[in-house]
Amino acid sequence: MFTLYDQSTSGNAYKARLLLHQLGHDFQTVEVNTFDGSTRTPEFLARNPVGKVPVLALPDGSHLAESNAILCYLADGTAFWPGDKMARAQVLSWMFFEQYSHEPYVAVLRSWTKYLNMTPEMAARESELRDRGYAALDIMEKQLSYSDWLVGDSYTIADICLYAYTHVADEGGFEISRYTGILRWFERVRTQPDYVPISWQPSGD
Amino acid sequence: MFTLYDQSTSGNAYKARLLLHQLGHDFQTVEVNTFDGSTRTPEFLARNPVGKVPVLALPDGSHLAESNAILCYLADGTAFWPGDKMARAQVLSWMFFEQYSHEPYVAVLRSWTKYLNMTPEMAARESELRDRGYAALDIMEKQLSYSDWLVGDSYTIADICLYAYTHVADEGGFEISRYTGILRWFERVRTQPDYVPISWQPSGD
Repeated sequence: MFTLYDQSTSGNAYKARLLLHQLGHDFQTVEVNTFDGSTRTPEFLARNPVGKVPVLALPDGSHLAESNAILCYLADGTAFWPGDKMARAQVLSWMFFEQYSHEPYVAVLRSWTKYLNMTPEMAARESELRDRGYAALDIMEKQLSYSDWLVGDSYTIADICLYAYTHVADEGGFEISRYTGILRWFERVRTQPDYVPISWQPSGD
Repeated sequence: MFTLYDQSTSGNAYKARLLLHQLGHDFQTVEVNTFDGSTRTPEFLARNPVGKVPVLALPDGSHLAESNAILCYLADGTAFWPGDKMARAQVLSWMFFEQYSHEPYVAVLRSWTKYLNMTPEMAARESELRDRGYAALDIMEKQLSYSDWLVGDSYTIADICLYAYTHVADEGGFEISRYTGILRWFERVRTQPDYVPISWQPSGD
């Protein structure tokens, strides 16, 4: 059985929960929290020196950090990461885009808005982050205005990766309703087999 | 022949130049520049909507963006990305770490220090970025103090990825001399077959 070191509010952790469920894996979650220090304990840092969720513990006791690396590990050899060498690299291209050009703006503004008290330092940077977040959403919209999926003609881990924080971007104050291509893609993702929402947790039985 | 849309000063572009050379690929470079607007032209944005280097053009005319996705594409099926499914995912884990927890601090402070005039807004953020950069270097040092390579027992694209900006971190004001494990790893990387420095360019003949 897999164990996912999880934070229920985290889009990065949701990526792993969603794919584990869609692949039919038996798994349990252990809730940790980046806000209360429980990702900075010696025990947690031994699992992931970066002190972040999610971390996947394999049945053999080894650990894998970084949400997108977890997606790649789980999807390797499945229909969630198909295609030839170039298509597989294009999936990775979207996933590196997500970590560098999307998550630091779209996810961070959600965190600041929903979970933290915005400090004057945060408020001073909000406008810059919002512009960059919209730039990332514009790039997704450009792709999704003429294509059902981010890569090729099927749902892949690139879609899971970008869906995680994009579908809750409104919680960070982004007007996602202006993006008709992205809204149609949300609906395609939500109707995939064994889709579960960000609030879902495995039952533990 | 491959064409690399390149920027000679960029560590991200260097990753691709180094691996293309070490794999023995015939390639040419086209210099573009994020500072003078040449990555924001309609022609360049058609190759990469994100407007960043590097971009790899394949012989069939298709394009691949994101430096780390380019490394994965080129290394797929070679000794530069070996191992079982878990080892391959651990390589990706380091590469996602690089884009989220290392490059935005180590590379950005190099860019601000070496290539841009630091504005008051940049100066106000320097201390935070430096702390985060050192945190990333600490994590690398922890691994490299007991292991020759970032993953497994050989040089992989995880090493190329992290080497690119770490080996020039001093240009951003980081005291890299305090990291003895990283310094020994620099020397191991530099003595790999067909290693070329960041200043190297293909001859074009």
